[in-house]
Amino acid sequence: MKFNATQIAELVSGTVDGDPKAEVSKLSKIEEGTKGSLSFLANPKYTPFLYSTAATITLVSDDFVAEKDYKTTLVRVADPYEAFSKLLNHYNKIKHVPTPSVSEKAFVSEDASCSDGVSIGDNAHIGAHTTIGKNCVIQPQVFIGENVTIGDNTIIHVGARIIDDTVIGSDCVIQNNAVIGADGFGWAPNESGSYDKVPQTGNVVLGNHVDIGANTTIDRATLGSTRIGDGVKLDNLIQIGHNVEIGAHTVIAAQTGIAGSTKIGTHCQIGGQVGISGHLTIGNRVGIQAKSGILKNIKDDSKIMGYPAFDYTAFNKSYVHFRNLHTHITDLQSLKKKLNHD
Amino acid sequence: MKFNATQIAELVSGTVDGDPKAEVSKLSKIEEGTKGSLSFLANPKYTPFLYSTAATITLVSDDFVAEKDYKTTLVRVADPYEAFSKLLNHYNKIKHVPTPSVSEKAFVSEDASCSDGVSIGDNAHIGAHTTIGKNCVIQPQVFIGENVTIGDNTIIHVGARIIDDTVIGSDCVIQNNAVIGADGFGWAPNESGSYDKVPQTGNVVLGNHVDIGANTTIDRATLGSTRIGDGVKLDNLIQIGHNVEIGAHTVIAAQTGIAGSTKIGTHCQIGGQVGISGHLTIGNRVGIQAKSGILKNIKDDSKIMGYPAFDYTAFNKSYVHFRNLHTHITDLQSLKKKLNHD
Amino acid sequence: MKFNATQIAELVSGTVDGDPKAEVSKLSKIEEGTKGSLSFLANPKYTPFLYSTAATITLVSDDFVAEKDYKTTLVRVADPYEAFSKLLNHYNKIKHVPTPSVSEKAFVSEDASCSDGVSIGDNAHIGAHTTIGKNCVIQPQVFIGENVTIGDNTIIHVGARIIDDTVIGSDCVIQNNAVIGADGFGWAPNESGSYDKVPQTGNVVLGNHVDIGANTTIDRATLGSTRIGDGVKLDNLIQIGHNVEIGAHTVIAAQTGIAGSTKIGTHCQIGGQVGISGHLTIGNRVGIQAKSGILKNIKDDSKIMGYPAFDYTAFNKSYVHFRNLHTHITDLQSLKKKLNHD
Repeated sequence: MKFNATQIAELVSGTVDGDPKAEVSKLSKIEEGTKGSLSFLANPKYTPFLYSTAATITLVSDDFVAEKDYKTTLVRVADPYEAFSKLLNHYNKIKHVPTPSVSEKAFVSEDASCSDGVSIGDNAHIGAHTTIGKNCVIQPQVFIGENVTIGDNTIIHVGARIIDDTVIGSDCVIQNNAVIGADGFGWAPNESGSYDKVPQTGNVVLGNHVDIGANTTIDRATLGSTRIGDGVKLDNLIQIGHNVEIGAHTVIAAQTGIAGSTKIGTHCQIGGQVGISGHLTIGNRVGIQAKSGILKNIKDDSKIMGYPAFDYTAFNKSYVHFRNLHTHITDLQSLKKKLNHD
Repeated sequence: MKFNATQIAELVSGTVDGDPKAEVSKLSKIEEGTKGSLSFLANPKYTPFLYSTAATITLVSDDFVAEKDYKTTLVRVADPYEAFSKLLNHYNKIKHVPTPSVSEKAFVSEDASCSDGVSIGDNAHIGAHTTIGKNCVIQPQVFIGENVTIGDNTIIHVGARIIDDTVIGSDCVIQNNAVIGADGFGWAPNESGSYDKVPQTGNVVLGNHVDIGANTTIDRATLGSTRIGDGVKLDNLIQIGHNVEIGAHTVIAAQTGIAGSTKIGTHCQIGGQVGISGHLTIGNRVGIQAKSGILKNIKDDSKIMGYPAFDYTAFNKSYVHFRNLHTHITDLQSLKKKLNHD
Repeated sequence: MKFNATQIAELVSGTVDGDPKAEVSKLSKIEEGTKGSLSFLANPKYTPFLYSTAATITLVSDDFVAEKDYKTTLVRVADPYEAFSKLLNHYNKIKHVPTPSVSEKAFVSEDASCSDGVSIGDNAHIGAHTTIGKNCVIQPQVFIGENVTIGDNTIIHVGARIIDDTVIGSDCVIQNNAVIGADGFGWAPNESGSYDKVPQTGNVVLGNHVDIGANTTIDRATLGSTRIGDGVKLDNLIQIGHNVEIGAHTVIAAQTGIAGSTKIGTHCQIGGQVGISGHLTIGNRVGIQAKSGILKNIKDDSKIMGYPAFDYTAFNKSYVHFRNLHTHITDLQSLKKKLNHD
């Protein structure tokens, strides 16, 4: 896709100062601008780069006054950063919406139902009794099992696996190679010292505006549903165990794991590589520092850290002393010596 | 699949109390029962739900006496929980066994050998000199390389990659996008400060009744075999390094990693996000708490925790004091002051 | 592939002592030798196995003198271990280079450009405006998006996903199901308490001789590039956030995660399950112990450990006291008692 300066100016309600036919096809930072790229100058600290940038077009503030020569075509706007964000969004939107069509190389069950505007890529698989909402994009090499329901405008990226009975809301994005609805890890020890499988017959239910990262796994419930609330954002390589429930607008960073049947509240912020034990209740608006290990219930609005985790401030107070533990213990030992000598 | 109350009663040796033609097609908890679902009442605490449940059929104890009206059809059995588990297993078994057939869209090497009853899905790939046992299910989009051997009744889920020379036993389940037999991480530093690859020419050998979770990776051996014993259960997103050996009936939770050449005994229970260094020996029946980091050999029957890990009880004793370290150090400082003033 | 003793001797500049027609098709440790395998005796400790090994051919030192009968054919060389490594490399090289050809079942965009000697497997996908260098191997079921550039001799294993705009150097290896170039995890909280997506329009750039492990994820930059330097080796299940930069010849073990915008120097050695926060600078030649959590910048040549991490030796000194904290606190309490009684 190419845009010229006039088109850019129209999109962001700006004015062209330079060549109106200057064309760009990509975005760049101003210090990394190349021919054909669109850049922006928002922070005055970066002004020197404007005079040297090779970016073809640069968004600048309406009141920008040049003090030297420059080569880039300017598009003047009220707020260059906001204008740039707007263009980013526009660019991304166009980029990710292929023309609706169903590849001849895809398998779509006769018993599946696809709404208007759906795009299905090569070698994708759509199982029986599955319903796909309007304008969904099912990229190549995706697998969607039987009896799956997907809302409108959802994008499933290459290689994602959506297993039988999963429900996905509208406006969701499932990144590459994510696995949603595989069997939970349920094993009952038997008398012979081996394990019998506890059948996993539930499903996974995602709300609307949910984003799932690459290679993340969300297990189906043993019975009932593993539930991911509206607006939840999960990063890459996360593990969500069976029957977990995550409240709306909670955000979780990469490589965190949540064990079976734990309930997490709304608007939590959970760092990367956090581990949360099974059958716990985590409140609303809880902040969990990266790499913490949670072994007990956590109240609303707590901020915690550590392995096992406790109050964030208290943890850091203890840790300062841990770092100097050798000095403290030496002190203790000399006190002991002194006291025993007295 | 639908079952009516008479069929259910037959399967669990029960008696129908209600509509013998009532039909169910799914399973639910009693408090989440919906039309067409089968539920059960085992725990008396849940009895109030029986009077309100919308489940079409509910398994209850032979001696259950209703104290109010209810709408669900009862199937009376000796042990409702056991009966429900039996039905779950029955349901799951039926659900996962497709009619044997080889998709025309699959690639099966002329030099591969498939036994009776094998099912191979669309776009699956079976390499040369590979042997697949009776009644195996190779789901769509699976890749099985060359010279692989798979026992009877094994299920390989969509997107799993079984690389050359892997041996998989009977009655195994490999979940979605698991990778078995990729190259181990072996690098020899050279004089120029870069690394030369140590060729990884061994393989992976899984015993019988082994379950491997979604997106889990098991590396082939440098030389010889990475070995996973009979009945081992691995959860999702686990990393097993080259030449690791895991004894029979050991269970490992999600996101745990085991570095190269470590040997783990039988009947161990290893929590999630555990890390075990390379070239260690972990005994039999060892319990490792989630998130522990293991840096040395561990004896049979140990229970350990921490980073680095040591005895479970000792760790927790130390950690109680860590939580209050600020108080202890304040005490220490005031003692010091007092003593120096005396 | 089969090799006889004469061919082996030629490859390693050795001499045959036994049957020159003895044939091998695989490699083994001497203690695990089987019919048809090639083994080696480098460490004198293993000499007893030479007399019992079932390996068909064994590499031994020129000056080896047998003291008992044996069945294996010897190939005498100056340095058996070096010779074996040489054969391993030779074997691996042959093994992984298929005859160049493009599968009829692959999708290759008309606007893509493939150089000589490229091999593309079944159901692989090569998007528009993508360029693939000489002798690359694109295995089956791989996805390569649009506008991707790949250098010469690079191997992309089954199931890997290379998303739009990625640049991969020469002589790289991308293992199975790795995801390179998926969207970074960028979310801006809005007034309604939910999150807006920050568009991720940058790309990922890998240098030459880079190896990426199975199921590892490397996110594209928000703007600009996520950069992985020449000779970097990443193990399995690693997470690299958006805009991260990793210097040349740094090696990172499995399940480590690096948050957005962090810069890591050259020649670092980073253990498994390490977590590094965003926006940090890690120097050159830094050693980070497995499972450490890094919350601040780290200087060149540091060796660190802990959660949060600090100097390796200091951490271990503190940890020795942590293990005995109960004893120390008991001492402290008895001192306190004694002092208060005086």
